[in-house]
Amino acid sequence: MRIAKVIGTVVATIKDRRLLGEKLLLIQPLNEELKNSGELLVAIDSVSAGPNDLVIYTLSREAALAAYDPDAPVDAAITGIIDEVNHETR
Amino acid sequence: MRIAKVIGTVVATIKDRRLLGEKLLLIQPLNEELKNSGELLVAIDSVSAGPNDLVIYTLSREAALAAYDPDAPVDAAITGIIDEVNHETR
Amino acid sequence: MRIAKVIGTVVATIKDRRLLGEKLLLIQPLNEELKNSGELLVAIDSVSAGPNDLVIYTLSREAALAAYDPDAPVDAAITGIIDEVNHETR
Amino acid sequence: MRIAKVIGTVVATIKDRRLLGEKLLLIQPLNEELKNSGELLVAIDSVSAGPNDLVIYTLSREAALAAYDPDAPVDAAITGIIDEVNHETR
Amino acid sequence: MRIAKVIGTVVATIKDRRLLGEKLLLIQPLNEELKNSGELLVAIDSVSAGPNDLVIYTLSREAALAAYDPDAPVDAAITGIIDEVNHETR
Repeated sequence: MRIAKVIGTVVATIKDRRLLGEKLLLIQPLNEELKNSGELLVAIDSVSAGPNDLVIYTLSREAALAAYDPDAPVDAAITGIIDEVNHETR
Repeated sequence: MRIAKVIGTVVATIKDRRLLGEKLLLIQPLNEELKNSGELLVAIDSVSAGPNDLVIYTLSREAALAAYDPDAPVDAAITGIIDEVNHETR
Repeated sequence: MRIAKVIGTVVATIKDRRLLGEKLLLIQPLNEELKNSGELLVAIDSVSAGPNDLVIYTLSREAALAAYDPDAPVDAAITGIIDEVNHETR
Repeated sequence: MRIAKVIGTVVATIKDRRLLGEKLLLIQPLNEELKNSGELLVAIDSVSAGPNDLVIYTLSREAALAAYDPDAPVDAAITGIIDEVNHETR
Repeated sequence: MRIAKVIGTVVATIKDRRLLGEKLLLIQPLNEELKNSGELLVAIDSVSAGPNDLVIYTLSREAALAAYDPDAPVDAAITGIIDEVNHETR
């Protein structure tokens, strides 16, 4: 999983039927300094995250398991809201 | 999922039999400024998108679930047509 | 799926038994200008492509579905021979 | 699999229910000189690794197989603690 | 699949139980000039490759199919030893 910040939403009325009911959030991947890093993703949300939340997200096959329909064509899902990141080796 | 623009079509008469009947669209991935970013992809289309449509697309294993045959050797699928992108943290 | 050109073959006598009988082609991924882009791949071929053919190829899990044995450890497959690429938004 | 160093932990009280009970470690991918290379990942841990351990980690679909629940939406898992790396061709 | 050279071994006494018995080889991905390209990988070996062998390797989900246990958390496997690479379009 990787770390991202929720920065908005995407509205898509016409979509694959297995995506109906899924909230689509726009997330910005972050690096270890929690600075922006890489392109925006559109992710489904199974944990009710909101704008500015720091989250962990899952990519690829396993992301779909966070959808209402585990066979939904989904490749990115928010799977946790982060309380704390500890760098123990610094 | 990521954001792309539909920019054309690909015609392939000879193809894997499980791809028969699939429309193959040429899509250009976009970044958060909705500017071109990264290489073109050839995606199947389950939502009847057309040229210049802003779409969300799904990669990898789950893309095939948007095909007529879920066992088709497909790794990119258009899964929604975008009405609106909201950056709520700007 | 992405676009590539077939540029050669790879011979491997010793290979995983589920790859026996698979033709291994060397392909060069192309960008939207149909210029070389990215590293060579070794792909199986389910459509009898030959040198210099422009092809679409599939990566990852779904590529194996194009193999004789769908459980073959395969991650790249040629799944169509391209007749025509149309950029409709230019 | 790739090589990384464990550098910390991530605390996420709200998470997908199938991630409950999983320890989330922050890992830094390393290159062949065992120098930092690429962005941090958040991985589950099936081998009780600790800070500063050199580990091998697995990405994508197979990472979930290291989780308590093999259907957990997990895409990175620590799957071994490295004792020794031998470059035999140097 | 891609082309790599075997350059060493990785020893990990503590590992996921489904990795027990798997030989872990250190491989260096190569480009089309057969020069080093990209980061080292740790791959299982189903074809008894040795140091300096030129090999094809498989990534992601399908790599696990080359393991003793197809549910092993494995994402890279050596699946063939290369005898010959032919660039037919040069």
